[in-house]
Amino acid sequence: MLTTELSEAQVSALRANKDRLAKDLHHSCQWGSGIRWGDGSSDTGMQRLALSDDDKKVRDWFIETTKALGCNVTVDQMGNIFAVRPGRRKDVPATFIGSHLDTQPTGGRYDGILGVLSGIETLKAMDEMGLETEGGVGVVNWTNEEGARFPISMIASGVWAEHIPLEKAHGLKEVPTVASLPTASSAPETMKSALEKINYLGTTPCSYKETPMAAHFELHIEQGPHLVSSGQRAGVVTAVQAYRWYHVNVIGRDTHTGTTAFEHRADALYAFSRMMVRAREVASSHGCLASVGIVETKPGSVNTVPGEVSFTLDIRGPKDELVAVVEAALKKDFDAIAADEGKGIGKPCRVEWTLDFDSPLVQFHPDCIDCVQRSAEAVAADSGSSEPKSLVREMMSGAGHDSVFTSKRVPTSMIFVPCKDGLSHHPEEFCSADDCATGTSIILQAVVRYDRKRFSA
Amino acid sequence: MLTTELSEAQVSALRANKDRLAKDLHHSCQWGSGIRWGDGSSDTGMQRLALSDDDKKVRDWFIETTKALGCNVTVDQMGNIFAVRPGRRKDVPATFIGSHLDTQPTGGRYDGILGVLSGIETLKAMDEMGLETEGGVGVVNWTNEEGARFPISMIASGVWAEHIPLEKAHGLKEVPTVASLPTASSAPETMKSALEKINYLGTTPCSYKETPMAAHFELHIEQGPHLVSSGQRAGVVTAVQAYRWYHVNVIGRDTHTGTTAFEHRADALYAFSRMMVRAREVASSHGCLASVGIVETKPGSVNTVPGEVSFTLDIRGPKDELVAVVEAALKKDFDAIAADEGKGIGKPCRVEWTLDFDSPLVQFHPDCIDCVQRSAEAVAADSGSSEPKSLVREMMSGAGHDSVFTSKRVPTSMIFVPCKDGLSHHPEEFCSADDCATGTSIILQAVVRYDRKRFSA
Repeated sequence: MLTTELSEAQVSALRANKDRLAKDLHHSCQWGSGIRWGDGSSDTGMQRLALSDDDKKVRDWFIETTKALGCNVTVDQMGNIFAVRPGRRKDVPATFIGSHLDTQPTGGRYDGILGVLSGIETLKAMDEMGLETEGGVGVVNWTNEEGARFPISMIASGVWAEHIPLEKAHGLKEVPTVASLPTASSAPETMKSALEKINYLGTTPCSYKETPMAAHFELHIEQGPHLVSSGQRAGVVTAVQAYRWYHVNVIGRDTHTGTTAFEHRADALYAFSRMMVRAREVASSHGCLASVGIVETKPGSVNTVPGEVSFTLDIRGPKDELVAVVEAALKKDFDAIAADEGKGIGKPCRVEWTLDFDSPLVQFHPDCIDCVQRSAEAVAADSGSSEPKSLVREMMSGAGHDSVFTSKRVPTSMIFVPCKDGLSHHPEEFCSADDCATGTSIILQAVVRYDRKRFSA
Repeated sequence: MLTTELSEAQVSALRANKDRLAKDLHHSCQWGSGIRWGDGSSDTGMQRLALSDDDKKVRDWFIETTKALGCNVTVDQMGNIFAVRPGRRKDVPATFIGSHLDTQPTGGRYDGILGVLSGIETLKAMDEMGLETEGGVGVVNWTNEEGARFPISMIASGVWAEHIPLEKAHGLKEVPTVASLPTASSAPETMKSALEKINYLGTTPCSYKETPMAAHFELHIEQGPHLVSSGQRAGVVTAVQAYRWYHVNVIGRDTHTGTTAFEHRADALYAFSRMMVRAREVASSHGCLASVGIVETKPGSVNTVPGEVSFTLDIRGPKDELVAVVEAALKKDFDAIAADEGKGIGKPCRVEWTLDFDSPLVQFHPDCIDCVQRSAEAVAADSGSSEPKSLVREMMSGAGHDSVFTSKRVPTSMIFVPCKDGLSHHPEEFCSADDCATGTSIILQAVVRYDRKRFSA
């Protein structure tokens, strides 16, 4: 059967296999399973840093599984893996389902993993019903989406979109904060050396020109509380909020804790503390977020007032202008706080900002949004609700995803499903088997609808 | 000439050799010299962590130098080095001058080092004038006074005083914050393995019973601004302020920075920031100090709200009761701050305190204080001031020193000399050659006066 020959009702009836999906997902989590939080076999978090030995194992499994489903597999120079189930037409790019198999150091089983597994389940469901597409259907595993080991998130989709130079990505070193984890070696690896070490440095140039896509769909847990607290089943993601990442250094003066009165200190850590308190106030007043994930003190001794503090700052907001306003306000306020600390000795602290990453507001493609919207409403009808449309909401993503970069080159959109307590980047991150299947059914239909949209005209 | 045969005027005329002292001091700083801050040959800080290769080299030099001065040298099981210039009587313990040759990771050339070098200069000055003492005169280099590499300061004098068990000290591991320095190996060493590695694990039991002292005198830079800002030459230290060191853990919840509203966070680092701001307010209101030197965040990722923060807290005050009052107030306030962060999700942060070290107020011995007082006034007369006594002040030490532990077993006191800007634990820590010599002349006289006090009766 060919997608373009299906009736609308037949498309709306397409469903993923919940049990098979859950089995495959937890099977894939045997590699890199993390902190245990319950008694069940799958009650653990994940600790699968990009390009670790565990990441290699799940990658090997991904390739073996997709090849068994008849896919052609390509690995590019960033270790991105593209598995394509051929369509009837050989001269057109495939429609892709993509996400990532790497996790945070104390992450969960759904962030990224569900997206890739929904792609595999889509292929299995199509195979099972003998469904042929006009264009091919691909599944892509993007490398190091988290940015937890190599500190630029979505770096490999960024190289593919030609927004990040390959050389910069290859030269990026793993961060010291994870160097003590068993997955990292003692001397810092670069992305290139880490790719070589696990044999995933492919020969295909990493570019949308070499591995083109017709579109990119991504299923993800919401990582926030909106769907779960409203009892809704799916989010049609129309945009991704703007965000910027910085490194901020505060330079004060090392001095003895026991002999230096407060008024004689230029305590970089005390200044940092005031800055962090202030950052929440300012961001909050503009409907934005400001967060510090990493802070490092020097020289790092119990009885020495820290003379230098370096911290990461992550500012997010629903508009590019709001992020800029918060940044400007904090630059002013941090300077004032620094000037205040150390003024007693005429040697106030000072502040240095470095912008590491700038991700402006992303608007997804109307064609993809439309396919997701119709698919979500069709699947929501399973609930028996008299108002299935009410179980679906349009929303903005708070987090960045590989879809941010694919959207710069090809039509893209995303689907969100609820996760428990809105929690993610935590071992107890949880999405029920029902919600995983709902999202996967939506992505299955969306890919079919997109294929029909491309070739029915 | 024998000390007991000198006139009071002859004692008051005893002086150290300024140039020889300065030359020896900077010679010893070739091992472990640190961050450069000026053009002069000695314009660098020090980075000589306890039991590092550089510490071994300066220890070897210390032994060679004191042996050449006719000393008998003993190394105990904590690597403490006792060099004794024999006196006329062989059946009595020596009067000691002591301090330490280890430094902070970004320390200076005077903290500890001046104290040991003043001992060597005292021996040289005595030799030069053919001065014989009744009891011997010793110089001791105490191991790991700073607590910078092995995180209990004054640990080796603590074992000697039998206040810290040898097993605990031998098992102590180096802190991860200095593991990246060239002086530390990649796997953490224990004190015992580090002592063995540099061949300074002696066989003499570490105890005041095995290496007894008649008294302990210590010359040190003030590490505060009082002497320098009042233009005074020397401080007669009568006491050491009380202090306590803690580790405080704040436990919140890891969550995604982009998708978690402030009211849904239990951000352990935000709670820490409020705690640090509050600690200064509370300590200040009781005339005490509260300082944080080290802070560590987990999991340590730009886009994950830290679920766990661990920090050191150092509370000091002029009375034991005041330190206890500040501790109690902060325990209450930290609990309140923690309860506030995460209340929106019904999972507030919580706080755990561990007391690592408790050093109650120390009062030095009146006999030692008297010797120092009279010596300081005699040396201050060199200034030509009509009121030389006004150039000497009684004071309390803000910092802990090995003299805290020796004072628990033998008569002890200290001498302070001014340091530039009151700065220490910093590469630019500075004490002029004149001030170094003033302090050393005082300690030379104090040791002679103590010998006369012991044996003239």
